[in-house]
Amino acid sequence: MSASVPGPTRSEHDLLGDRDVPAAAYYGVHTLRAVENFPITGTPISAYPDLVTALAAVKQAAALANRDLGLLDGPKVDAIVGACEEIRAGRWHDQFVVDVIQGGAGTSTNMNANEVVANRALELLGHDKGDYKHLHPLEDVNAGQSTNDVYPTAVRLALQLAAVRLLEAMEVLREAFAAKALEFADVLKMGRTQLQDAVPMTLGQEFAAYAVMLDEDRARLAEACALLREINLGGTAIGTGLNAHPAYPELACRHLGSLTGIPVTVAGDLVEATQDMGAFVQLSGVLKRIAVKLSKTCNDLRLLSCGPRAGLAEINLPPVQAGSSIMPGKVNPVIPEVVNQIAFEVIGNDVTVTFAAEGGQLQLNAFEPVIAHSLLKSLTHLRAGCLTLAERCVTGITANREHLAHLVARSIGLATALNPHIGYEQATAVAQEALTTGASVHDLVLAKGLLTQERLQEILHPDNLARPHGRAAAAVDA
Amino acid sequence: MSASVPGPTRSEHDLLGDRDVPAAAYYGVHTLRAVENFPITGTPISAYPDLVTALAAVKQAAALANRDLGLLDGPKVDAIVGACEEIRAGRWHDQFVVDVIQGGAGTSTNMNANEVVANRALELLGHDKGDYKHLHPLEDVNAGQSTNDVYPTAVRLALQLAAVRLLEAMEVLREAFAAKALEFADVLKMGRTQLQDAVPMTLGQEFAAYAVMLDEDRARLAEACALLREINLGGTAIGTGLNAHPAYPELACRHLGSLTGIPVTVAGDLVEATQDMGAFVQLSGVLKRIAVKLSKTCNDLRLLSCGPRAGLAEINLPPVQAGSSIMPGKVNPVIPEVVNQIAFEVIGNDVTVTFAAEGGQLQLNAFEPVIAHSLLKSLTHLRAGCLTLAERCVTGITANREHLAHLVARSIGLATALNPHIGYEQATAVAQEALTTGASVHDLVLAKGLLTQERLQEILHPDNLARPHGRAAAAVDA
Amino acid sequence: MSASVPGPTRSEHDLLGDRDVPAAAYYGVHTLRAVENFPITGTPISAYPDLVTALAAVKQAAALANRDLGLLDGPKVDAIVGACEEIRAGRWHDQFVVDVIQGGAGTSTNMNANEVVANRALELLGHDKGDYKHLHPLEDVNAGQSTNDVYPTAVRLALQLAAVRLLEAMEVLREAFAAKALEFADVLKMGRTQLQDAVPMTLGQEFAAYAVMLDEDRARLAEACALLREINLGGTAIGTGLNAHPAYPELACRHLGSLTGIPVTVAGDLVEATQDMGAFVQLSGVLKRIAVKLSKTCNDLRLLSCGPRAGLAEINLPPVQAGSSIMPGKVNPVIPEVVNQIAFEVIGNDVTVTFAAEGGQLQLNAFEPVIAHSLLKSLTHLRAGCLTLAERCVTGITANREHLAHLVARSIGLATALNPHIGYEQATAVAQEALTTGASVHDLVLAKGLLTQERLQEILHPDNLARPHGRAAAAVDA
Amino acid sequence: MSASVPGPTRSEHDLLGDRDVPAAAYYGVHTLRAVENFPITGTPISAYPDLVTALAAVKQAAALANRDLGLLDGPKVDAIVGACEEIRAGRWHDQFVVDVIQGGAGTSTNMNANEVVANRALELLGHDKGDYKHLHPLEDVNAGQSTNDVYPTAVRLALQLAAVRLLEAMEVLREAFAAKALEFADVLKMGRTQLQDAVPMTLGQEFAAYAVMLDEDRARLAEACALLREINLGGTAIGTGLNAHPAYPELACRHLGSLTGIPVTVAGDLVEATQDMGAFVQLSGVLKRIAVKLSKTCNDLRLLSCGPRAGLAEINLPPVQAGSSIMPGKVNPVIPEVVNQIAFEVIGNDVTVTFAAEGGQLQLNAFEPVIAHSLLKSLTHLRAGCLTLAERCVTGITANREHLAHLVARSIGLATALNPHIGYEQATAVAQEALTTGASVHDLVLAKGLLTQERLQEILHPDNLARPHGRAAAAVDA
Repeated sequence: MSASVPGPTRSEHDLLGDRDVPAAAYYGVHTLRAVENFPITGTPISAYPDLVTALAAVKQAAALANRDLGLLDGPKVDAIVGACEEIRAGRWHDQFVVDVIQGGAGTSTNMNANEVVANRALELLGHDKGDYKHLHPLEDVNAGQSTNDVYPTAVRLALQLAAVRLLEAMEVLREAFAAKALEFADVLKMGRTQLQDAVPMTLGQEFAAYAVMLDEDRARLAEACALLREINLGGTAIGTGLNAHPAYPELACRHLGSLTGIPVTVAGDLVEATQDMGAFVQLSGVLKRIAVKLSKTCNDLRLLSCGPRAGLAEINLPPVQAGSSIMPGKVNPVIPEVVNQIAFEVIGNDVTVTFAAEGGQLQLNAFEPVIAHSLLKSLTHLRAGCLTLAERCVTGITANREHLAHLVARSIGLATALNPHIGYEQATAVAQEALTTGASVHDLVLAKGLLTQERLQEILHPDNLARPHGRAAAAVDA
Repeated sequence: MSASVPGPTRSEHDLLGDRDVPAAAYYGVHTLRAVENFPITGTPISAYPDLVTALAAVKQAAALANRDLGLLDGPKVDAIVGACEEIRAGRWHDQFVVDVIQGGAGTSTNMNANEVVANRALELLGHDKGDYKHLHPLEDVNAGQSTNDVYPTAVRLALQLAAVRLLEAMEVLREAFAAKALEFADVLKMGRTQLQDAVPMTLGQEFAAYAVMLDEDRARLAEACALLREINLGGTAIGTGLNAHPAYPELACRHLGSLTGIPVTVAGDLVEATQDMGAFVQLSGVLKRIAVKLSKTCNDLRLLSCGPRAGLAEINLPPVQAGSSIMPGKVNPVIPEVVNQIAFEVIGNDVTVTFAAEGGQLQLNAFEPVIAHSLLKSLTHLRAGCLTLAERCVTGITANREHLAHLVARSIGLATALNPHIGYEQATAVAQEALTTGASVHDLVLAKGLLTQERLQEILHPDNLARPHGRAAAAVDA
Repeated sequence: MSASVPGPTRSEHDLLGDRDVPAAAYYGVHTLRAVENFPITGTPISAYPDLVTALAAVKQAAALANRDLGLLDGPKVDAIVGACEEIRAGRWHDQFVVDVIQGGAGTSTNMNANEVVANRALELLGHDKGDYKHLHPLEDVNAGQSTNDVYPTAVRLALQLAAVRLLEAMEVLREAFAAKALEFADVLKMGRTQLQDAVPMTLGQEFAAYAVMLDEDRARLAEACALLREINLGGTAIGTGLNAHPAYPELACRHLGSLTGIPVTVAGDLVEATQDMGAFVQLSGVLKRIAVKLSKTCNDLRLLSCGPRAGLAEINLPPVQAGSSIMPGKVNPVIPEVVNQIAFEVIGNDVTVTFAAEGGQLQLNAFEPVIAHSLLKSLTHLRAGCLTLAERCVTGITANREHLAHLVARSIGLATALNPHIGYEQATAVAQEALTTGASVHDLVLAKGLLTQERLQEILHPDNLARPHGRAAAAVDA
Repeated sequence: MSASVPGPTRSEHDLLGDRDVPAAAYYGVHTLRAVENFPITGTPISAYPDLVTALAAVKQAAALANRDLGLLDGPKVDAIVGACEEIRAGRWHDQFVVDVIQGGAGTSTNMNANEVVANRALELLGHDKGDYKHLHPLEDVNAGQSTNDVYPTAVRLALQLAAVRLLEAMEVLREAFAAKALEFADVLKMGRTQLQDAVPMTLGQEFAAYAVMLDEDRARLAEACALLREINLGGTAIGTGLNAHPAYPELACRHLGSLTGIPVTVAGDLVEATQDMGAFVQLSGVLKRIAVKLSKTCNDLRLLSCGPRAGLAEINLPPVQAGSSIMPGKVNPVIPEVVNQIAFEVIGNDVTVTFAAEGGQLQLNAFEPVIAHSLLKSLTHLRAGCLTLAERCVTGITANREHLAHLVARSIGLATALNPHIGYEQATAVAQEALTTGASVHDLVLAKGLLTQERLQEILHPDNLARPHGRAAAAVDA
């Protein structure tokens, strides 16, 4: 794993000794060792551009704060700022090569950032990469900082960025459901509880519920994001702020807010904030909530479209691919299915986050990298799931209106509406007889003379069944 | 399981036929069948007095709303109200006999409540139990209601009541930690990151962090409770409000608020609210968050008290029982250990809740009983854990001050404080030499002439190490 | 919590000082302190009779081994044996009062057992309870033992006992499914994949699969039990066997096997066995597997019985109680629903066990009590679920034969059977036309002249569709 | 997402219409649609070479079985076999482009395989890609097959292959621990239970336990693999074997065994086998078990190496990188930390697998892709973790022998060894006095005249403390 590097190299030094680093690399010896130490997933941190961008923003804010405090001279600051802006614009991301699952509480990620920024800044200053006497990854780029405040701050920013994109995707999906709710507002159907025929409702009400759920989930996600915006920058190693200027936290935070447009604030107790994973656990819990409800919604879509001939067959999902390598003409609900699977992944990620958070000890949680990895996966996959569900499924859903009307007409669930008029016990008898004989509730009530035809029709009028609060109200008040 | 009931009985009827019910029982045939159908845990719903009380409050509010609407006559209302008030005062709880884990989405719990209220109300009216022609469990006590709005409403109230008690217990624990933070404010010690000696801090800062964590968790729990207070009463079977008067939801909600002192509101979309488990999933996620952090705190307490001679031995937990049946004089951290186990149970309950919530289908979640059971367990056990931890552990903790001071003095972590003064690379060399030779950082710095004794002492002064923002600030500004 | 005990008392002593214990109590001061320290769930360990019985068996086996080694004199051994046999016969269980969730790695449970056995043995010897100079809970009853070998051994025995009862219940359920498989062997129906109509099968095949699943799960459970039977008795505190005679482990194990009829063996490495939770994690994983498949089966039963008129309505579950407080005549699948909820609880318990197992440190896992609690709950609830499902649901299931036949006849899934005869692409065209026009696959194939009527009927003959390996084989071979 | 393909194309057709496919692509229209439908993770199935190879083996075995049965002509078989062998040799993997998380129960993966094999086979036959009249992806390559038997079979093979590599890595790690057990066989140290000083043991015993744990876990993993080798090939769509020759399952299975060297067998009930996820859930449970114990081991390593000066400092982990960007000379246990995080990921994956398995409905589980993805991740990451832990940590561990000896000498835990000689109560008094006064147990016992110096030294001799079964046995027997 630590075989010598091929091609031209430069020599770098750390507490373990000297090592050759590829001459072209912007990362340095610390990064190199981390790559060798963590050959786990094969996925480098550059897979999360938000995280790389956030790291650069933190480094830039720190440099500016140090400049304001007179702790870093102008040319160094300019070079660091220049390098960070390039990274934030999307350059040099391929130099962020450490594995997403890594030991060290994010140290290697911070080291990777320090080295890339330093080497690019050296170039901007006209020096060679690796010529750290002019600008040092730790003494300059990392001045006044520790992994333990830089890394969680960058992770929080990255999560915030990804969460905003998820919020947008959820809104796209919500709108798709809301549009269907409108389209199906007049489609009467049987509602079901415990998978048994219950009482009538409209298909529009059913789809409106999915839209409302997303709205509520968006509100919860927005709340969880607020917690992310409280950062511990300036706490350095354990929150006591050792080696950082006392004015540094507020200054760095202000610069970070300006650079990113995200209204970050400094935590009240930096010792607590350094070790606390609460905001991540909360976010994970909310993502799990979103996953649970998305999954439930997809289960419903698959159930309602069960068929085409031997199932509920209430709605049709748009076909997006052939469903079977053996069954001709079969079309499957593959889009809801993939969203279910994303949900299962997110729920599993929540357990991973829970374990990692519980495992923190004393002044730091060493397992932040797997927390960051899990949350970034959940956020990006949920976003993909919402967009895919909206665009490739919900917008194309159609209703089998006649079939739905037919099911309502012959339903025994209509007996419930008779409850206030003929009593629970008599209504039970009618329902049981209907079930046994195959007769309709409507016909049995008339045959038994329990109600007049006129009264019965009023009670069973669609407007009264599915949204009784208009007419029924009047009827009762009369 | 359905053997005939011994002793005097009365006969009752349901859609499956006639059954003998014990004459003394306030519950009826529906409850009897449920007891036979669900011989699962042996724990009856009366194990959760909050739930029984909440059910009675809902029944009472419904009766009052129906009275206001002219749908239930005065004597019946008075009798129902009388029965409910008795239950809310703690009577008849032993008549709530259905198992806590039950099929039917809570129907059997609602039936149990309807029957107990009806039979007690019949007695108050001077009738025999079971003489339902005078007052009927379903047609009168359950009038305008469905399990699907009554049960979730009662569960939400019960959770709210239990959550308030947890909040109080968390405050007791928070105060215990805060008192220790004050007591230990001047005890300098080594902070640790990744279980390695890091930089100095005070033991007070360490305990203050635990207090702050609890404060934040209390805020999250209070937020989650707000969601519980949005109820779906009046939605009846599937949220369309079938068979409930249109004015009923607001009226019943208002009565419920008055009776309980809990500011409940009616959900905006009752179809969505009927099927939505979001508030429960959110609460469960927050309880998991509390569990994770409590567990981490207990892990720390156990670690810091590891000893008495071969461990960190920084603090002493008060002995509360002999620790071993074989090892004389051994005292174990049994209180943190039991809290850890409660935390693990709560985390497992969260997965149960997640599964149950995801499994809901269409207009209802059939698995609410196990959700209620899991959350009530988590809330009550966490409360017990917080109180036990506060009273039997935290308040009695003492510090081994001399040992802590000694560890700081010989620590290599002091090299970090020299970083800004002699640079990261030179500080590394000092640290490595100290580690190899056993010398102190202090002595090496002087021996190498890197700093004057005066300057060194200022840098390593406790006030500068653990809270550098006072003096250090001045130093830098000077 | 440590208020003075009312009524007559005796004084006992431990390392914390003197305490009054109720004179009538068989437990002593150690138990009393534990009860005060762990007011968590309110459920005492006597809720698990298997565990109490197993503890007594271990104490009895230890006494007999010590007798064989000349380490405990005859009268003491006889008295201990007498007391243990009484407990194993069901007496004194109410004296096992410590909470099921407790700190101390089971020490309090072991102490509770030592004290009850000692005090009952003292009585048998003609002494007063508490007169420990004649027979001591720790020096005699616990001789050669430590909680750390006694407790896990007892837990393993208790789990084994409970697992055997679960195996029996699973067999009852398997037989119920197998009987239905036979009863429905000739009922042709549409199979479904991804909730879409697939190809025909028999209802018997569907139910047979549930029976086979249970068979396989029983085999896995039996395997997991084998791991439980490897015990660490004789390892004492950390597995080094300190204070136990070298011949003791084998002797005690042999006695334990004779007493219980369970073929226990001594683990090869007692240090490893003392800290290892592997057998518990494995058992928990297998219980989760059982839960997952039971839950899937119950999901299927609920889905197939969805109706009565607006669902699949393929089978009917026997009604066991009225389904709704508002919907007359509604009958719900409450038995599968309660089994689903048990499954969700078991899955949650698995996470609890996982956390507790992972949290073990160095030579012992302090969290065994919550592991034992979780597993015993899972085993007993799963057993209740299997029996309830068998007796109150599966045995009463009926099939809607005509409806099923009708669905097969008009199914588009029949096109798959034509695949080898007319090709995937042409079969796709037929299937699509059938779906669009509402025509049957049968009629379209004839109308298009793709196959002769004779050939078509042979292909679509029920015997060929659902079990093609008889006739079809002949056809192909011809 | 479905933008037109740039560059030269060919036209293909499916039930949704015509689509242009890149002319150079070996995949076809079905794959193209799947790529568009599932833009979820960005990771293609080619990320799992074992899965691609296994798919090719299944296709090859099916072709050979169909040849034996006279159902596929020689040139087609030869071309298919040729294409499959190329894929199994590592070619064309880049053509397996569908996302690892996909809807459709693996249909798209199977389609992808069918198309790549068909197009490469067409080339081998001298035809153009896409010229399916000469050799058809579904009618020829997929002949007698369904996704529902092909995909699970391929997944099982892939898991088996990955599991074997994990078994090898676990053996490497086991050997590393075993070597240390030997190296540290004579290093006496204090054992700890519940993080409190317990009784002495050797560091060798401690490391031997880790080796034994791995041995046991390897046995469990091997058992779980046996379940993987039971396949459902030949069951086609739902296990009834529709469209497959009755002799096909055994033939195909035999060919598959020969090709892969894996002794696969045909499941007894193919209907059950098609829907059953039991083997996957079992494997996942065993991987979780491995993760739990690896994590516990890493927790121990981190704890024992806690220091360098303010911790237990019993062992030293080899430094592999600088530990901090701010703390000079700090070295962290980054290798155990990364293994902890892998373990947390595996535990989360187990929950994902559980959810996906429970969500299966009726004759098929639609969520197999996320099960396969989760398990393959767990297997490969655990393997990486074992190798990394062995090579970069365990083999370089050293012991602080003098420090360990010192801790034993002054330990209060020695009082336990005196238990059988002076009694539990007197030993308790000695232990308490030692703790209070700081005196050693040894000195106190002598001062009080409880034992002679000679007897005391014999009792406290290292050989008797850590492995008492030699000398102690003799002593007792004497």
